[in-house]
Amino acid sequence: MLNPRSNLPEAFIFEAWYVAAWGEEITRAPLRRIILEEPVVMYRQADGAPVALSDRCVHRAYPLSRGKLEGDNIVCGYHGFKFNPEGACTWVPGQANVPKSARVKAYPLVESGPYVWIWMGDPANADPSKIPDHHWTTDPAWRCIKDMATIKARYALLIDNLMDLSHETFIHAGTIGSDDVADTPIRTEVDGHVVRCFRHMENVPAPPFYRQSTGIATNIDRWQDIEYDVPAQYTLHVRVAPVGAPDEQAFFSKVIYSLTPETRTSTHDFWVIARPAKNARPAWAERSGILSQSTVLGEDLDALEALEENLPAEGGWQELSINNDRGGLQWRRVFRDRYNAGRAAHEEAVLEKLVR
Amino acid sequence: MLNPRSNLPEAFIFEAWYVAAWGEEITRAPLRRIILEEPVVMYRQADGAPVALSDRCVHRAYPLSRGKLEGDNIVCGYHGFKFNPEGACTWVPGQANVPKSARVKAYPLVESGPYVWIWMGDPANADPSKIPDHHWTTDPAWRCIKDMATIKARYALLIDNLMDLSHETFIHAGTIGSDDVADTPIRTEVDGHVVRCFRHMENVPAPPFYRQSTGIATNIDRWQDIEYDVPAQYTLHVRVAPVGAPDEQAFFSKVIYSLTPETRTSTHDFWVIARPAKNARPAWAERSGILSQSTVLGEDLDALEALEENLPAEGGWQELSINNDRGGLQWRRVFRDRYNAGRAAHEEAVLEKLVR
Amino acid sequence: MLNPRSNLPEAFIFEAWYVAAWGEEITRAPLRRIILEEPVVMYRQADGAPVALSDRCVHRAYPLSRGKLEGDNIVCGYHGFKFNPEGACTWVPGQANVPKSARVKAYPLVESGPYVWIWMGDPANADPSKIPDHHWTTDPAWRCIKDMATIKARYALLIDNLMDLSHETFIHAGTIGSDDVADTPIRTEVDGHVVRCFRHMENVPAPPFYRQSTGIATNIDRWQDIEYDVPAQYTLHVRVAPVGAPDEQAFFSKVIYSLTPETRTSTHDFWVIARPAKNARPAWAERSGILSQSTVLGEDLDALEALEENLPAEGGWQELSINNDRGGLQWRRVFRDRYNAGRAAHEEAVLEKLVR
Repeated sequence: MLNPRSNLPEAFIFEAWYVAAWGEEITRAPLRRIILEEPVVMYRQADGAPVALSDRCVHRAYPLSRGKLEGDNIVCGYHGFKFNPEGACTWVPGQANVPKSARVKAYPLVESGPYVWIWMGDPANADPSKIPDHHWTTDPAWRCIKDMATIKARYALLIDNLMDLSHETFIHAGTIGSDDVADTPIRTEVDGHVVRCFRHMENVPAPPFYRQSTGIATNIDRWQDIEYDVPAQYTLHVRVAPVGAPDEQAFFSKVIYSLTPETRTSTHDFWVIARPAKNARPAWAERSGILSQSTVLGEDLDALEALEENLPAEGGWQELSINNDRGGLQWRRVFRDRYNAGRAAHEEAVLEKLVR
Repeated sequence: MLNPRSNLPEAFIFEAWYVAAWGEEITRAPLRRIILEEPVVMYRQADGAPVALSDRCVHRAYPLSRGKLEGDNIVCGYHGFKFNPEGACTWVPGQANVPKSARVKAYPLVESGPYVWIWMGDPANADPSKIPDHHWTTDPAWRCIKDMATIKARYALLIDNLMDLSHETFIHAGTIGSDDVADTPIRTEVDGHVVRCFRHMENVPAPPFYRQSTGIATNIDRWQDIEYDVPAQYTLHVRVAPVGAPDEQAFFSKVIYSLTPETRTSTHDFWVIARPAKNARPAWAERSGILSQSTVLGEDLDALEALEENLPAEGGWQELSINNDRGGLQWRRVFRDRYNAGRAAHEEAVLEKLVR
Repeated sequence: MLNPRSNLPEAFIFEAWYVAAWGEEITRAPLRRIILEEPVVMYRQADGAPVALSDRCVHRAYPLSRGKLEGDNIVCGYHGFKFNPEGACTWVPGQANVPKSARVKAYPLVESGPYVWIWMGDPANADPSKIPDHHWTTDPAWRCIKDMATIKARYALLIDNLMDLSHETFIHAGTIGSDDVADTPIRTEVDGHVVRCFRHMENVPAPPFYRQSTGIATNIDRWQDIEYDVPAQYTLHVRVAPVGAPDEQAFFSKVIYSLTPETRTSTHDFWVIARPAKNARPAWAERSGILSQSTVLGEDLDALEALEENLPAEGGWQELSINNDRGGLQWRRVFRDRYNAGRAAHEEAVLEKLVR
C-alpha cells in the first residue's frame, strides 16, 4: 500500500531481484536473514552453489537455520525433516513415504560479483537478465571496497535520502557536503524502471573528504549522476576534477547501494565503492576509505533512525515537495507503477499457496 | 474517547493551556518534547522570546530539533529548510521562491512564573487570560521549590490519584499519610471547569513529614483544599496548625501540579511547592524539601506505573466509586464536558489541515 | 479462536483446573501471577488455606498484590479497600456502608500434592473430582523432584513439543534422544479429554542421560507412554530396562508437566519427575536429576522461544502433519471440543459480569 498523503511507498515490490547477502556470508553454516518480512535460510551446496529456502519448516514452522547440513540438504533441528536445494522434502521421521506437499519455498539465487541476488516473487518470473547493472564490481578495471549495515528505518526513507543529495550540505557538512550541493539544480529522466538525476557543480570548493582522497587543493568540478534501478539498486556516478580539467585528470568513483527491506521499518544496506584499478591505492588507504564511507553512512543512519522515530505511529503525514525533490518524486512514481504491476503476480502466488 | 465502562478519560483536551517546559529549559539549543502525542521543538529568539513549532519539518518530516538556529529562525538539519518563529518557511534549497504552503504548526506560548505555557488547540482560541491561576509562583510573598518528572502512566491516573487524597493513608503511610485522611469525608464543588474538594481534619496526629517540616509536636488541624482547573493545573491548599490555633500560627503551603500528557500512557509532571516568604527557610531546608517531595512523588510514581501496567490491554475495565470519589467523579464530568466542547474546534482544525 | 489454517489452538480453555503455583510459593506475602491473561493474587489465610483473588481492585484497578494482609483479608495498598477470602469487600475508606457490588473475583483453589490448582472458569463448575490425576506426587511409594519455568512461547507449542517426542532425536540428541525415537511408530487413543500415545522401542541403544541414570551398559527396551489430560496436565510414563528384562529389573519414572498459559505467547511450566521410592537415590543424585531435567528443558525452551519468534506476526501459517503427529492432531481435536464446550459457560460468566 502506498501512503495516500505522502505518497511514500510503504509496501514491498516482490517481483524483483534484491541483494540477499555478500557471497562470503553464505557458507556451510546456515545463515538466517529476514527479507521483505520473510525469514530466509541460506547455505552452500557441496559444489559451492548457494541455496535460499524459507526459514520455516513446512511441518511445524521451526527455523531451518537452526538445523544442519547433510550433503546438499538441510535437516530441520526439531523433527529432522530433510529438504533438498529445491525445497522439496526428501525424508520425514517415522514413515517411508514423504507427502508430496512437503515443500518449502525455494528462492531463485544468482551469485554475481560480491553479491548473491535473490528473487522474492514468483520463481517463474526470475529472469537473471533483469538483475540490475553492477558490472563495476566484476570488471577488473575497477577495485571495490564494501560493507553492510541493517538500519532501523523504512526502505523508502533510505531511497528518499539517496535521491536528494542536497542533504549532503546539512547531514554531511563536515565530510562530503558543501553549500553547492543544495544550491545546484538537478535534471532527471526516467528510463523504464531506472530513474536518473544529474547534478553537475562547476568550480566549487571541495568538501573535506574529497580534498583528502584526491589531494586536489583548488576548486573542483563535481558531478553527481544518480542511476536508481527501482527498487533495489542505486548507483551514484561521481566525477571530481580540478576546474575545467579533462577526464584524464579526473577522479571517478561509483557509490553503489543495494537496499533490501528487512521489515516495514528496517532495511539491509549493502554498499560498495568502486574506483578505477589504475587509481589503486595501498591497503591502508582502502581501509581508510571504508572508515570514511562508514562515517558518512553513520551520519545518514543516525538521521534516518531519528526520522523513522519521528513518523506518526498512525501513518499518513503530509509531505511538501520542491524542485530538488524531482528525483524523489520520480522514484515514487516508478515504484508505484512497478508495485502495481508486480502485485497481481504476487497475489496470485500467495493465493496459490493458500489453496495448496 | 472516554472509556465507556470506567468513564476514565482516555482522550486529550487540545483546546487548553498546558505547561510545556520550565522557562530555563528553553534556550538557544532546540528542545524536543512530546506533548499530547505531538512532537514539539522549543527555543528562544535572540530577544529571549520562546518559540514552539511542530518538530516535523513540512518537507520530509525530519525533527527540526536536530537542526540549529540562525538568528530567530530554525534550520532543518536534513535539507536546510528555514522556518521563522511563526512557523513560516523562509528558505528552501535549490530554488528562489518558497512555496506558500511551506509552513509548520506554531504553538502559542506564554511565559509566566517558572512556566512556559503552550496552547495545543486552534491558535485563534489561545486566550492568555485563560491560563490557569498560578500567582503563588509569581507573588513575591511566596517562595517556591520545583522539579519535573515524566511518568509512565496515563494522565487520568495521575489526576485520579490527586483528586482522592485518601490514598495518602496507604501509599504515603510513612511520609504524609495518616488514618484520618481516608476517614475524613470531603465536600466538593464545581465552578466552571474548576473542581474543588475540601477535607478539613481537626485534632489529628501529624504525619512524619509534617512533624519534621513544622516542628509541631502535638496534634494538628490539617486542611487539604483541592482546586483542579481541568485539564492541566492542580493546586492543593494546605493549612497545618496546632489544634485550634489561629492563622498566625498556621503553616500554609501550595502544592501545585501542572500535568501535561506526553502520550496516551505517559505524562509530564511539573510540580511546585510554594510557601509564604515570611516562612523562608535556609537553602539546605529547601533542598531537603525538594527531596521530601521527590520521595512522596516517587511513592506515587511507583504506584501509578504499576497501576498502568495492571490495566487490561484491551481497555474497558469496570470501576466502582464510593463517597471519597466525589472529586474523582466531578473531574470526569467536567473533563468530558470540556472535551466535547473542545472537540468540535479541534476536529475543524484537523480537517482544515487535511484539506490544505 | 482456533487458527483456521494450522488448527493450532490459540485460545484458552477457562473451564479447567490448572496449576497456579507450588504450595510453598503461596505464603503470607501476596504472590502475583498472570494466568490465562488474568492477574491473580494468591496468599494464605492464618489457618494455611490458600486464597486466589483477581489482582485488580474493584475500585481503581490497583494490584492487590501490592497491599498487605490483615488476618485473612487483603488490604489494597492504594485506598485501603479490604477483601475477604471470598473476594467480598469488607471495608472502604470514608464511609460506613460497603457497596454490595464491591467484590473481586475469587478463584476456587485446591491444594494437593506439591500443587495448588486453580479453576479459571465459572466457580459453580469447579468440581475438585475433575482435578487431573497426579497421585504419583502424593503416593509415598514415589519420590519427586520438581521445578518451574515461565517460557516465552505459546502454550500450544509446548503441548505440540510434548505430544511428538520424535523431537528428542534432534533437540535432545546429546541427552535423552536417539534415532529410534523418531523412527518408532506410535499408537494413540482418546479417552474423554485424555489423549494417550504409546511408543515402545525394543532393543535400542540407551541415550547418554539414561546410561548415566540407570547404569545399564547394554541395549535397552524403552517405553514412552504419554497421557495428556487436556488442557493442563501431561504425564509421560517411562519404562527403561535391559533388553527383554522383566519389570523387576526395569527403571520406571513419570515425567509430569503441568502447563498453565500465562499470556497468548508465554506459559508457566511446572514439572515433576517421580521415581519409585524403592529406587531412592542419595541427595546429590536428586540434585543431579534436577540439573539433568533442567538441561533437557533448557533445550526445549531454547527451541520453543526461537519457534515462537519465527511465527508470522499476522498469524495463520500452514502446517503439514505426518504419522508421528497423530498425537499432535488428537490433542488439537480434543482441545477444540473441550474449548467449544467450555466457551458457552465462560461467555455466560463474562456476560453476567458485564451486566452486573
